[in-house]
Amino acid sequence: MESLLHYITTRRVLLSTLTLLPALSGPLLTVSASAQTSPGAPLPSWNDGAAKQAIRDFVRTTTDSASPNHVPTEERIAVFDQDGTLWVEHPMYTQVIYCLERVPAVVEKKPELKNVEPFKTVLSGDREAMARLSMRDLEEVLAATLTGMSVEEFNSEAKKWIEAARHPRWKRPYTELVYQPMLEVLRYLRDNGYKTYIVTGGGQDFVRVYAERVYGIPPEQVVGTAGGTTYGYGKDGKPFLTKEPKLILNDDKAGKPEGIHLMIGRRPYAAFGNSNGDREMLEWTGASAGARLKMLVLHDDAAREYAYGPAQGLPDSKVGTFSPALYDEAKKDGWTVISMKNDWKRIFPFEQ
Amino acid sequence: MESLLHYITTRRVLLSTLTLLPALSGPLLTVSASAQTSPGAPLPSWNDGAAKQAIRDFVRTTTDSASPNHVPTEERIAVFDQDGTLWVEHPMYTQVIYCLERVPAVVEKKPELKNVEPFKTVLSGDREAMARLSMRDLEEVLAATLTGMSVEEFNSEAKKWIEAARHPRWKRPYTELVYQPMLEVLRYLRDNGYKTYIVTGGGQDFVRVYAERVYGIPPEQVVGTAGGTTYGYGKDGKPFLTKEPKLILNDDKAGKPEGIHLMIGRRPYAAFGNSNGDREMLEWTGASAGARLKMLVLHDDAAREYAYGPAQGLPDSKVGTFSPALYDEAKKDGWTVISMKNDWKRIFPFEQ
Repeated sequence: MESLLHYITTRRVLLSTLTLLPALSGPLLTVSASAQTSPGAPLPSWNDGAAKQAIRDFVRTTTDSASPNHVPTEERIAVFDQDGTLWVEHPMYTQVIYCLERVPAVVEKKPELKNVEPFKTVLSGDREAMARLSMRDLEEVLAATLTGMSVEEFNSEAKKWIEAARHPRWKRPYTELVYQPMLEVLRYLRDNGYKTYIVTGGGQDFVRVYAERVYGIPPEQVVGTAGGTTYGYGKDGKPFLTKEPKLILNDDKAGKPEGIHLMIGRRPYAAFGNSNGDREMLEWTGASAGARLKMLVLHDDAAREYAYGPAQGLPDSKVGTFSPALYDEAKKDGWTVISMKNDWKRIFPFEQ
Repeated sequence: MESLLHYITTRRVLLSTLTLLPALSGPLLTVSASAQTSPGAPLPSWNDGAAKQAIRDFVRTTTDSASPNHVPTEERIAVFDQDGTLWVEHPMYTQVIYCLERVPAVVEKKPELKNVEPFKTVLSGDREAMARLSMRDLEEVLAATLTGMSVEEFNSEAKKWIEAARHPRWKRPYTELVYQPMLEVLRYLRDNGYKTYIVTGGGQDFVRVYAERVYGIPPEQVVGTAGGTTYGYGKDGKPFLTKEPKLILNDDKAGKPEGIHLMIGRRPYAAFGNSNGDREMLEWTGASAGARLKMLVLHDDAAREYAYGPAQGLPDSKVGTFSPALYDEAKKDGWTVISMKNDWKRIFPFEQ
């Protein structure tokens, strides 16, 4: 994905996608979309082809102790962008929907905000008016919905929401709209000694809430855009951490290798992305000796998911831009482009 | 330990310890001090007593699936301060010695600094004069020796130094001055499914250089005081990260739980420290349900190591203050104080 911050500052995006927002989510139906891989040969949801072959060749050459490309187990790191790479990013990043949908709850706790902008406009549901909100207004919505509460309070609210929210097209939890072929890659790499990380422009705390259940990736292996916290004590003397509106890591574009250095401290051997926001992460992964796997998911399947990306003459996207320049770099540097349409037998775990 | 930054700003510390500095280190003799634990019963270098018992009870109750305190494997996180907890912190934090000793090399690369303060004074070797350097001067030394180079260049320099440097008392590499009983705790916890982390006020990048070899702790499990990096491209088009003089995480005192949240995202079940800088980390570890192990190493063994800590009537220390207030909190909240003198059969791996 591209970063949440970047997204928020792109007003035309809001203008054109607010109309696609689902109604506020109804009560829950918890269905886990976690790794449903078949036994037997790895990558069963992949068609034979260059992409599948690249993954298998990479695993073979880096795990065969007789290979010149052998990688010691402790150095086996693989990083994955999330939005558009592991799950659906259309019509809007899930976390942005979360922030907008959290406004009523924030106002319920602080009724004095009810008639104050930008909360008044968001509450009105008038999407034309929402799209006219200023950058500063939108940052205020983010700050109010993502910060100013304890870490535990945030986790509990985000967890409740992610279980209840439904995607407008499939009417299913966002956590079911994960790509089955990518779940299989995660599993296959882990089965071969790789530690799998999410490296997302989205909020680190947000993704950590469900990453273990959905992807089998524990919180400590989620790197994302992160704000500071402040340690303090409650009235009962018990310590807690408060989420602050202070940006520590903007984990997008150049921020991705910077975030990888901060949080992991090793260069990955494999990196998966889908947009311009992942370019530096793939470059960084490729800029050292040995076999390195660099892959980009191309969304070219309007029937089963979406088709976007000017690199292949598809319409440009409100999220996850895949530019011609990125495509040229991929071709020049031997990155592999995954075609959802041609490389994936099925898209979602719920499809049989 | 207390933080490097705090240390640097405490001028009396420099005044009183510069005279103890070893001469610039001579060429190398690489000896690994990595985990030398005996087979058989765990914790062989621990005397029977409350401390050893606390560790064994904790492991038993959190790993027994029939216990009400059972902790699922993926949640088993244990955090360790480094300086004074895993290795010797006297007479001066190893990383501060590194920064001062790196000055000649920095000046060799930038000869224009030779006659510029504070570098001129550090080069002079006049320790009285060095002790009179201002806070700003010292920050300049840190910035010049820890930032402004690529991550790989820093790693390579720090690695060379850590292999060559010798402690003034034992004339051994600092990496041999690790506490054998603590290596055994690390091993024992790992053998029981715990993920072991270092959470240090020292520099994250510095400790990562040797943590895997010395403690069996990989870079991604080292949390420390961290600066930012900037992604850029060399003349050959190859990307690299430059270490910047911009503080991202001051991983000391309240910064320790904040750093744990940022980097791990889970509350630890066990925490080990030795000074006021570790107080919040132990509080945070203890402030949730279930069995939690909170331990403090007391340096009360002048013969085999050092004796300091006003909490027990020992002299106050230039590094690693263990105050009476911390001791009171430990007693009140059921933290266990480890007496080096009484609880440890031997201190270092090289002692047989």
